[in-house]
Amino acid sequence: MAIDISNSIKERRIRFENLIGGEDVSRLEVEAMPSIPINRPRIPEFWTIQQEYNDLFSSGIITNSKYVRQFETRIEAYLGVRHAICVSSCTTGLMLLERSLCLTGSVIVPSFTFPATVHTLIWNGLRPIFVDCESSTFSVNPAEVEENVDRDTSAILGVYIFGNPPDMERLEKIADRYKLKLIFDAAHGLGAWYKGKPCGGFGQAEVFSLAPTKLLTSGEGGVIATNNDCLAERLRMGRNYGNPGNYDCEFVGLNGRMPELSALLGLKGIDSLEEEIRRREYLVSIYRQELEPVKGITFQQVKKGNRCSYNYFAILVDCDEFGMDNRGLQHVLGERGISSRVYFYPPVHLQKAYRGYYRKYKDRLPVTDFLGRNVLCLPLFNGMEESTVYQICRAIKSIQEQGTKTVLRIPFKQK
Amino acid sequence: MAIDISNSIKERRIRFENLIGGEDVSRLEVEAMPSIPINRPRIPEFWTIQQEYNDLFSSGIITNSKYVRQFETRIEAYLGVRHAICVSSCTTGLMLLERSLCLTGSVIVPSFTFPATVHTLIWNGLRPIFVDCESSTFSVNPAEVEENVDRDTSAILGVYIFGNPPDMERLEKIADRYKLKLIFDAAHGLGAWYKGKPCGGFGQAEVFSLAPTKLLTSGEGGVIATNNDCLAERLRMGRNYGNPGNYDCEFVGLNGRMPELSALLGLKGIDSLEEEIRRREYLVSIYRQELEPVKGITFQQVKKGNRCSYNYFAILVDCDEFGMDNRGLQHVLGERGISSRVYFYPPVHLQKAYRGYYRKYKDRLPVTDFLGRNVLCLPLFNGMEESTVYQICRAIKSIQEQGTKTVLRIPFKQK
Repeated sequence: MAIDISNSIKERRIRFENLIGGEDVSRLEVEAMPSIPINRPRIPEFWTIQQEYNDLFSSGIITNSKYVRQFETRIEAYLGVRHAICVSSCTTGLMLLERSLCLTGSVIVPSFTFPATVHTLIWNGLRPIFVDCESSTFSVNPAEVEENVDRDTSAILGVYIFGNPPDMERLEKIADRYKLKLIFDAAHGLGAWYKGKPCGGFGQAEVFSLAPTKLLTSGEGGVIATNNDCLAERLRMGRNYGNPGNYDCEFVGLNGRMPELSALLGLKGIDSLEEEIRRREYLVSIYRQELEPVKGITFQQVKKGNRCSYNYFAILVDCDEFGMDNRGLQHVLGERGISSRVYFYPPVHLQKAYRGYYRKYKDRLPVTDFLGRNVLCLPLFNGMEESTVYQICRAIKSIQEQGTKTVLRIPFKQK
Repeated sequence: MAIDISNSIKERRIRFENLIGGEDVSRLEVEAMPSIPINRPRIPEFWTIQQEYNDLFSSGIITNSKYVRQFETRIEAYLGVRHAICVSSCTTGLMLLERSLCLTGSVIVPSFTFPATVHTLIWNGLRPIFVDCESSTFSVNPAEVEENVDRDTSAILGVYIFGNPPDMERLEKIADRYKLKLIFDAAHGLGAWYKGKPCGGFGQAEVFSLAPTKLLTSGEGGVIATNNDCLAERLRMGRNYGNPGNYDCEFVGLNGRMPELSALLGLKGIDSLEEEIRRREYLVSIYRQELEPVKGITFQQVKKGNRCSYNYFAILVDCDEFGMDNRGLQHVLGERGISSRVYFYPPVHLQKAYRGYYRKYKDRLPVTDFLGRNVLCLPLFNGMEESTVYQICRAIKSIQEQGTKTVLRIPFKQK
């Protein structure tokens, strides 16, 4: 039995979008008022921040000042990098980074990512070269990257999928070999480690998101980490229109400043970031232990020595073995009050904004297509109880037991 | 006697830039700790907003939600437009607006403006066609606009210089005649009127800034006003990456969301906006009355029936008649503890970021060059006393009396 729920999903999503506007929380599920959300912003208690807010209002200095600098210093120490530059969003950070590096021609990027990753290239007049990812880690496949380098390529843009660091060593080798810039969309990656080392200092720079769905949030915001002094100076200039201070702009920047109110939010949250990551690792260990025996369920792999920040916890749902596909499971979990998310879908090269790329990449990104049909992100949020994880795992097990009777295969949108 | 202070200005500016980062308050003067600033953020008292902030932290919904919508509704009512779309900055707003209108080729824009006006065109891959402005109103000159329309032109981008509305009727006629889009960078213009009508609904859309130096601030932020339902929908989608709600982006947007903390700041400030504008009109009337008799000082003209929001109060300093030029006067006022600002200088076509345009526009924008050598913005801020205006006017008069003895002509940077 196949049920087409795509229309009603779309309708409900749009209705919800109109209602609350847009952060990338799974809207469908929130509207259905589930008892278990997929995500929940981690913000400090108001009383812990009230005094500083009061001082801020009295001082009248409300953007890109003392608290932004304090927050940057804390992030520099946390990541072990020379420079952290706070910006208004991760998207803004990537746009400014690409502009500051004077990238030209084409940039290699995975299609299995959040659309903003690729949008930043378009804003910079760059051509995305989509490559496939690894079915185990979901990260960009270094072999594919190397295969796609050509004369026009100026950079590689790696992505931390759900907080999992990509294969830094191999990507750095390729970048060195072909004299390419290497940058990272680490939107999900704050707190991740690569081979025991905190991420932030890889490539020319890495950009983290501080949006509400992230482990550390400043309301809206992002932060660029780099060890390159020159680049840091350009980025600081770039977030202020490219103005070096005398209003004779050196290059075309934008307004990427972070308000002080936002910086304070991040500053208060960073203290408990490590605790939050460890808590998530623990909850994921329960998830894995409980779901390991379930036929047709496997996990995003984190390589030995690496640490995933688990901005999202992703499973792979094998339709034939489990009895339904990722969308089917999402639907049935939703009926039981459990939010989940088919993420990232559609992959960027199949999105309407990229319709010019569809034909070129048809059938050329098999792992990306596979992940779109199999990945499901399960709830993982601040303050989540172990018992909630057990409850979700029990639900998945019982769905499987019943699911084999009625295979729910949600048709993917035709392109 | 000519004194070159350009180097020390630059050094001090850069030092200050490093210290507090960047909003477009005149840094030089703040560092010199003047008794009279040129500008001062107008923010509500903390106690008036504390309860809402507390509720916001409890709710956990911290971006683009209830308060953003409330703020938008208030702005819609204030401007008398169908749609107000809050965004992260005026720059973001213009970038999204140009993208949403699918502009192509070239866009006609004044060079006498803040650099971000033109930056937004570059981010959209558009070619700026710089035109000259009127020496009286400082606004883009409609005759020059019409003269510069060619087959490649897709839009006119008008600017509210210091809060003064441009010649809407003539610009609308030209846009109609040549089938061009007409949009406005109204960064300084919230509260302005054109022929007795509140601005906001002219052209396809107008974009206002809510940055700290503006009459109404949300910390950082901007708002797009339009009467076009379709465009409004695209803009709302655009500020959320172009995502209609199903993550299948319809076009290349960006993260232009406004945090709830920022929206609340704006919401509290809008109540007293009219009062602030009227207060500024009154202070400007004192300035004009006191400086009218001073030889060599004239004013930016506001046409009959129009209202300037007076984000800045600008005078023209005639070097030969006054005894020194605008930079000289700025320097001497600074020594007396009075901030002022040579604004906008350099004009955009002379900035390093636009070096490709310098040769083409050399000597072709005489009024723009003239304004760069003559305009000086004097202090005008929230809570400014009449006595302060009188004090500044007295200082200018006494400077003139002494100034004729030593003509201070600050050399402009060589290009």
